[in-house]
Amino acid sequence: MPRSHSADIDRLIQLLARLPGLGPRSARRSVLQLLKKREAVMKPLALALRDVADRVVVCDTCGNLDTQDPCHVCVDVRRDKSVICVVEDVADLWALDRSETFKGRYHVLGGTLSALDGVGPEDLNIVALGQRVANGEIEEVILALNATVDGQTTSHYLAELLAKHDVKVTALAHGVPVGGELDYLDDGTLSAALRARTKVSE
Amino acid sequence: MPRSHSADIDRLIQLLARLPGLGPRSARRSVLQLLKKREAVMKPLALALRDVADRVVVCDTCGNLDTQDPCHVCVDVRRDKSVICVVEDVADLWALDRSETFKGRYHVLGGTLSALDGVGPEDLNIVALGQRVANGEIEEVILALNATVDGQTTSHYLAELLAKHDVKVTALAHGVPVGGELDYLDDGTLSAALRARTKVSE
Repeated sequence: MPRSHSADIDRLIQLLARLPGLGPRSARRSVLQLLKKREAVMKPLALALRDVADRVVVCDTCGNLDTQDPCHVCVDVRRDKSVICVVEDVADLWALDRSETFKGRYHVLGGTLSALDGVGPEDLNIVALGQRVANGEIEEVILALNATVDGQTTSHYLAELLAKHDVKVTALAHGVPVGGELDYLDDGTLSAALRARTKVSE
Repeated sequence: MPRSHSADIDRLIQLLARLPGLGPRSARRSVLQLLKKREAVMKPLALALRDVADRVVVCDTCGNLDTQDPCHVCVDVRRDKSVICVVEDVADLWALDRSETFKGRYHVLGGTLSALDGVGPEDLNIVALGQRVANGEIEEVILALNATVDGQTTSHYLAELLAKHDVKVTALAHGVPVGGELDYLDDGTLSAALRARTKVSE
């Protein structure tokens, strides 16, 4: 094994290579760039990682990851308390929130039901969702799960579960992605977009 | 601005997004993955960054980055003391060393001469190279600079500088990259490969 640098640098490269989107080659490039910007980037990054790792908690109400509990979304008084958007993962919550279209609150399931992977309702954050809805303040639950088989199975399960409450249950629309070309879309998406076609003019 | 997470998490995302190969989207994905593996990856990564940032130094002899000075390459007694390979950057040193073909030592210039960017010989680690060669132990200097205009200008400059010493000066061969297809190669590389053709059999 060539030893052009120390075992500590090697270990740092291996840890960085575990980040999504970085392989061993980009991890090496990252480490070299970090070493050249030790004060400006490397030390602040180390501090920020340590700090966030120590302080991050799961929001007891919605399941979001944040440095405070309840999280920034749940304590925000400008948000509509009567609408909950159900998502699989914190990443989906962040993505929807970046679109700045939804001004309600969220509920993170932590995954989807999956017979193959042995994930049942008791493994997901579903009981808490029932409790939030049962408390009565909620008027609408938007099911924003992924358009995968497991995602849609979970959507279906939740819709049945919520049917016993006096609450409107909706789901994200299917259709052509903005900027998408028809030629590249799958048949399922095209069928859905056709069925849900909207009126343009009289 | 949506606030689905705290300013600390935002800052961590921004710092990670500055790594080469990671944009804002992969940085967000990285942070989410790190938050899910706090003990196994996030805290060790923070520690490793801090530790390497504190301890890394530039090798006084060759310019390599390492946690010791002289670096692992310079202290390795199994390496041939009589050959120096001159490279532009620490990244090149690591790349050559991974190929496990070269068993001598290195000299990192820290860049190339560049009239456009105002980089002169005094801005590079050139005086130290002259001193290493003048000390007499060196028999061969391999110029392994990039095959760019600036790299080749620097090669030429170094070759002239070293001509006054009793030392053999060589350069990396030009030719077809291993696994490369002729159809995709530029004319310059093809000409060089033709001119430097090697005998296969009598």
